[in-house]
Amino acid sequence: RIDSARLWDSLMQMAQIGPGVAGGNNRQTVTDSDAEGRALFKKWCDEAGLTMGVDQMGTMFMTRPGEDPDALPVYVGSHLDTQPTGGKFDGVLGVLGALEVVRTMNDRGIKTKHPIVVTNWTNEEGARFAPAMLASGVFAGMHTLEYAYGRTDLEGKTFGAELERIGWKGDEEVGARKMHAYFELHIEQGPILEAEDKTVGVVTHCQGLWWLEFTLTGKEAHTGSTPMNMRTNAGLAMARILEMVQEVAMAAQPNAVGGVGQMQFSPNSRNVLPGTVVFTVDIRTPDQKKLDRMRAEIETRAAEICAELNVGCAVEPVGHFDPVTFTPELVERVRSAAEKLGYTHRDLVSGAGHDACWAAKVAPTTMVMCPCVDGLSHNEAEDISPEWATAGTDVLLHAVLETAEV
Amino acid sequence: RIDSARLWDSLMQMAQIGPGVAGGNNRQTVTDSDAEGRALFKKWCDEAGLTMGVDQMGTMFMTRPGEDPDALPVYVGSHLDTQPTGGKFDGVLGVLGALEVVRTMNDRGIKTKHPIVVTNWTNEEGARFAPAMLASGVFAGMHTLEYAYGRTDLEGKTFGAELERIGWKGDEEVGARKMHAYFELHIEQGPILEAEDKTVGVVTHCQGLWWLEFTLTGKEAHTGSTPMNMRTNAGLAMARILEMVQEVAMAAQPNAVGGVGQMQFSPNSRNVLPGTVVFTVDIRTPDQKKLDRMRAEIETRAAEICAELNVGCAVEPVGHFDPVTFTPELVERVRSAAEKLGYTHRDLVSGAGHDACWAAKVAPTTMVMCPCVDGLSHNEAEDISPEWATAGTDVLLHAVLETAEV
Ligand SMILES: NC(=O)NCCC(=O)O
Ligand SMILES: NC(=O)NCCC(=O)O
Repeated sequence: RIDSARLWDSLMQMAQIGPGVAGGNNRQTVTDSDAEGRALFKKWCDEAGLTMGVDQMGTMFMTRPGEDPDALPVYVGSHLDTQPTGGKFDGVLGVLGALEVVRTMNDRGIKTKHPIVVTNWTNEEGARFAPAMLASGVFAGMHTLEYAYGRTDLEGKTFGAELERIGWKGDEEVGARKMHAYFELHIEQGPILEAEDKTVGVVTHCQGLWWLEFTLTGKEAHTGSTPMNMRTNAGLAMARILEMVQEVAMAAQPNAVGGVGQMQFSPNSRNVLPGTVVFTVDIRTPDQKKLDRMRAEIETRAAEICAELNVGCAVEPVGHFDPVTFTPELVERVRSAAEKLGYTHRDLVSGAGHDACWAAKVAPTTMVMCPCVDGLSHNEAEDISPEWATAGTDVLLHAVLETAEV
Repeated sequence: RIDSARLWDSLMQMAQIGPGVAGGNNRQTVTDSDAEGRALFKKWCDEAGLTMGVDQMGTMFMTRPGEDPDALPVYVGSHLDTQPTGGKFDGVLGVLGALEVVRTMNDRGIKTKHPIVVTNWTNEEGARFAPAMLASGVFAGMHTLEYAYGRTDLEGKTFGAELERIGWKGDEEVGARKMHAYFELHIEQGPILEAEDKTVGVVTHCQGLWWLEFTLTGKEAHTGSTPMNMRTNAGLAMARILEMVQEVAMAAQPNAVGGVGQMQFSPNSRNVLPGTVVFTVDIRTPDQKKLDRMRAEIETRAAEICAELNVGCAVEPVGHFDPVTFTPELVERVRSAAEKLGYTHRDLVSGAGHDACWAAKVAPTTMVMCPCVDGLSHNEAEDISPEWATAGTDVLLHAVLETAEV
């Protein structure tokens, strides 16, 4: 069993870095706070005797050697970056849980055949730079390095320049490492485990996603002196598209969602009808066919809505992953670890995307989840209990030990 | 008749200051560009022999003396500030047209009983700091100076601090000046004059306005892992309110408008349902009862929409004026000047708000309008012909001369 107090203490120390405005965190990717968080994590890894490799995407690989020089490592990790108004546990639990696994092994003098690599992926959130899971996506060959470096935030800064600025652009070629397996512990970010009073989530699948960035082009005009019938109103088209996305998601129940989190009016002046409205539709479902149908319906109906209002409509996909099935053998290893340790558990489909979804493209992969209060995440009030964190990390420890071969 | 080429040349020179991105201007109020525009205008006024007074709102009063030391001045002006993506003529024509009136009088050695004061009001647009017509509103006793100084832009800067920073906070008590009359020349910003092939608009009324700032409070949550039925979706409520505002405006036809130009999502991240959505509804009509009915219906229905979605709904009026009736005697003076000069004309209701609307509270007031291409304004492509500018300024000259008593 892991050291529950030590794990919790590390989580609380990391939460001091990049504080939010309401008790959570604003430690967005490749900011100064991200650099500070990385430095603290590195210090802990140094103390645990791990050696560091950093790739050209800034992903940190912290290695505990194995006994067989030819054995591929077991990777265990998640991400330290947060949303602008994020919680203390989303991602962080997976990185510090992986560190706790290694610390526990050190305490007990446990040796494994396969090395173990505690991993901190860069820009999992996709909040500042779309898409989410950017570094693991490059690692898995889903994006080129150039594509990733060129992604821009709302201020027009590029990911590549910011990564360089904070001093974490490493030398390693991205994706050159080969993995024996990849494990990720994460909070559920949804309501199921808590509602059913289960302590451990055995993650069998991850639902697929499209992020569709709409750019609607209207005609900038005076809100007062432009008659209703002379307007080319991109704001009205946006409103109708949001309502339509809601309809499409409701019609796709159960197990489908759709919504909008990011919105920019331009010129964003109270007495100017917007010339452009840019926003991103986020749709998800574990069912590949349904996902494709939802996307097609949204694009078709948005085009109709815009045509009727004479508003220009361009759609660019800025994030995507297909539904993922995790490696059954590893899933079973997680399930039986929970069983053996006496934790209540159930199978889960992940509602959020995770670096594990991309790792699954190149390695046997699975995840462990722990409950979170009210299913709330991407909110500074996100919360978990120390007992839940401990249970998830215990299960992670046992599944990793079995895979790394003691 | 005025000097058409000189007027146009001054308009084009002013348009060099605070250039936009598409041929228009970004010379927003109390910015460095605003200060630059003011300095050029002051230089021209100095050359025309005018003496300057500046009040505590930064409004510039440039006086050409009259012959009767006891006669109250005739004020003639508009504003030099622009929208973030504004045109070259909105406001500027009224200030430089007034200057051209004085220059023409100087050329001809015309003396008047009443002094003439060329006026540049601060923050007419209300783009950076709501409400619009802020300085003339304080002048007319509609707002306190403290209220005006405390207005904030999207970056949280206050109007008062910015006015001080650019060095244009004057000493004069705001509103201490008494006016014999106030005249304002402005582009129509709407389609009527051009459509009916009239050169001069005789402005009889100005429609009333409400700016209603909505703050919708939802629950920040993950767009992927939060089931549809667990969402408190402020973005969806916003979409329904925009559609409802459109309905209310269409039901209020003819002579009513409603729309939204400013919108802020927070935290504005693609995978976070917004915790707050803030936007401003702009509704206008010349009919006082209709205006009040529209506001009441919008507030009632917005509250219902939000209640159904469990979204918090707060409404703050951040701009308002009642419909205005201009002084019939001055209106007639404008009409007969157009007639005398042989310009085609028609009576108009102003769709936009103007400093004249507040001046009308404290002095006999009216306006002159000239057409603009396609009725387009609050757009960098805003355009007028030199002939239209000349005609409006000619009419302004004659109406002012009659009022100032040659
Ligand atoms: N786990 C998580 O919140 N990842 C961010 C990417 C997503 O939107 O699913
Ligand atoms: N003339 C003009 O555009 N004024 C700005 C205030 C308004 O929105 O009407």
